[in-house]
Amino acid sequence: MSQAENIHDVVIVGGGPAGLAAGIYTGRGGLDAVLLDMMGGGGQVNTIDRVENYPGVVDPESGIELADIMRKQSESFGVAITFDEVKKIETTDELLTVNCTSENYSAKTLLAASGASHRPLGVPGEGRLTGRGVSYCATCDGAFFRGQHVAVVGGGSSAVMEAVYLSRIVERVTLIHRRDSLRAEKIQQDRLFAADNIEVLWDCAVEEVLGNNEVSGLKIKNLKTGDPSQLDVTGMFVFIGLIPNSTFLKGVVEMDDFGFIKTDTRMRTINPRIFAAGDIRQDSARQIGTAVGDGITAAVNIQEMLDTVTPDRQYVKS
Amino acid sequence: MSQAENIHDVVIVGGGPAGLAAGIYTGRGGLDAVLLDMMGGGGQVNTIDRVENYPGVVDPESGIELADIMRKQSESFGVAITFDEVKKIETTDELLTVNCTSENYSAKTLLAASGASHRPLGVPGEGRLTGRGVSYCATCDGAFFRGQHVAVVGGGSSAVMEAVYLSRIVERVTLIHRRDSLRAEKIQQDRLFAADNIEVLWDCAVEEVLGNNEVSGLKIKNLKTGDPSQLDVTGMFVFIGLIPNSTFLKGVVEMDDFGFIKTDTRMRTINPRIFAAGDIRQDSARQIGTAVGDGITAAVNIQEMLDTVTPDRQYVKS
Repeated sequence: MSQAENIHDVVIVGGGPAGLAAGIYTGRGGLDAVLLDMMGGGGQVNTIDRVENYPGVVDPESGIELADIMRKQSESFGVAITFDEVKKIETTDELLTVNCTSENYSAKTLLAASGASHRPLGVPGEGRLTGRGVSYCATCDGAFFRGQHVAVVGGGSSAVMEAVYLSRIVERVTLIHRRDSLRAEKIQQDRLFAADNIEVLWDCAVEEVLGNNEVSGLKIKNLKTGDPSQLDVTGMFVFIGLIPNSTFLKGVVEMDDFGFIKTDTRMRTINPRIFAAGDIRQDSARQIGTAVGDGITAAVNIQEMLDTVTPDRQYVKS
Repeated sequence: MSQAENIHDVVIVGGGPAGLAAGIYTGRGGLDAVLLDMMGGGGQVNTIDRVENYPGVVDPESGIELADIMRKQSESFGVAITFDEVKKIETTDELLTVNCTSENYSAKTLLAASGASHRPLGVPGEGRLTGRGVSYCATCDGAFFRGQHVAVVGGGSSAVMEAVYLSRIVERVTLIHRRDSLRAEKIQQDRLFAADNIEVLWDCAVEEVLGNNEVSGLKIKNLKTGDPSQLDVTGMFVFIGLIPNSTFLKGVVEMDDFGFIKTDTRMRTINPRIFAAGDIRQDSARQIGTAVGDGITAAVNIQEMLDTVTPDRQYVKS
C-alpha cells in the first residue's frame, strides 16, 4: 500500500496507561489509531506489585492485571498494540512520518506516550528486589511501609522531598548520599533536618541490596573512609534521576533540560500535530491516574483538532 | 476548638471523581484533608448508566458503583465526605477560611473540584430518561448508539462538534436548532454539512421526550410555523450550555467568561493556595478519567507546595 492510501488519524507511541487510555478513547471515537509499543504494553505499571491508589480499582490488584484490563479495553475498541520501536519522526505541515524498526507509518497526528525510566543504582539485588522493597516512587509505595524503617538514596530535590514525604508515613527514614552536602533547595533541606525521624548518612553509597524475597537490609560503604557497614531496612527508595524516552522527538518539539516534553493543559506541544501524555511530559505527577487523564485529554483534543481547527492556530507557548 | 488550633492542610470542595481522587492521594500522603460535598459524593458520575471508557474498569459497571469504590478508597485513607455547602472563601496570605452552611473551616490550601452542571432543556420526559437515551456527553455515551438514529439539540460549537463526532459512530444524526443559522465556526459547519448522515431541523424545538424506560422519540415544534411533528430517535444529546459550580470563587481566582477556572498544567490557579481540578477547570476534557488525573495532579502539587516552596513563587500565568 502506498503512503497516500494509508494515512492514519493518529500514531500513539507507548502502551503504558497514557497510551492505552488514548487507545480506548480514539478507538471508541471512531479514529484510525495505531498504538506502538516495543514490548507488550503496560510500561512501568508492570513493575507494581500492588496498586492501591488508582481510583475506582480496589482489592488491590497487581500492576500487570490493571494494565491487562486497559489493554483489553483498547483492543475492544479496535486499537491493539503493534510491536515496533520508533526511531525517528519526519514532519511536514500536512503529515507526519513515523519511522520504526519494522515499518513506517504515515499519520495526521502523533501522541508521545513513551514514558520515562528511573535511573537505577546498578547494584546487586536491586533489580531482583524491585517491587519487593526496592521502589522508585514514594507516592506510589510509601503507604506499604507504615511503621517501618526505610532508606532513601540520593541528594537532589526529589530525594529530599520524598524523604520528607515518607517521614510522615513510615517510622524512620535514613537518607543515603554520596557527598557531604545536598543539592536540594535550602527550604527543602530545612524540612528534612526539622523531621526528627530522618537521619542522613553522608559520603555513603549502597553496595548491595540484601534479602531473599523482600528487602532485609543494605550493604553500605563510606566513600571517604572505605568503611563497610550494614543498614537494616525493609525498603529502599532510589531517586537519582529520571530519563524521559523522548529521544525520537529531539528537535521536533519543545523540551526542558532533561528531555521532558513541554505541553499546555490540553497536552498540545509546539508542533500542532504532536501531543504528549504521561511521564514523558514536563510537570507530570507520574502516577497511573495522571497518565490516564493525560492520555484521555490528548485523545479528546486530537479528535477535536482533526474535526475542527486548522493546525496552525493551536499551541499557546508557555 | 478555636481556629488556630484546627488549620487543615487542605479543604477539597466537591466529592466527584476529581475530589475523591484528591482525597485518596492527600489521605494516603498523610495530609489533614477535609472533603466537602452537598450530597453524598459521586457528582455527575451517579447519572451514568454504564461506564465503559474508564481505563482499568470493565464489565461495564454503573457510575454509582464506580463512585462508591472511589469514596470507599478515600475513606480507607482517612478522608470521608463531610456534608456541607460552601458559601464563600476568605483569603489572607497565610490562610484560607471556607465558610459553609453548617461550619467554617480554616485551611492552608483549597482544591476546587465542584464540577459543572449541564443546562437541561427543561422539557417533560428529559429528567426521567436521562441515562436512558438522554445524554449530555457524546464522548461518554455515543458508543451505546451504534447503528441507531439520534438527535442532537443546540446550535453552538459543542452541538455541531458533537454531531460530527456522533456521525462517525451512529447510523444517522438529526441536529435540532431553534434558529435558522448556527453559531459554530465556519470550519465546524463545513464538517457538519459534509457528513452525509447528518440532517438539520431548523427553527425547531423539542417539546417532550417520549418513551417509557428508554427514549423512543421526540415531540418537535416548528417555532416559525407552529407545526408539530414527531422524530423517531433512540437517543437525544443536549448541548445548550454548561454551568461551572464556581460562584464561591468569583473574584478570588482567574476564570474565563463562562466561569471556568484557569489553571496551569499543575492545577494551580492565580491564588497560590487554591487549586482546581475536573470539570470546573477551563480546558477540561470532562471525562471521569481526566477528572481523576486532575485530582491526583492537584493533590501531588498541594503536597509539594506544603512541603517545599513559598506560596508566592508558584503560579505561571497563562
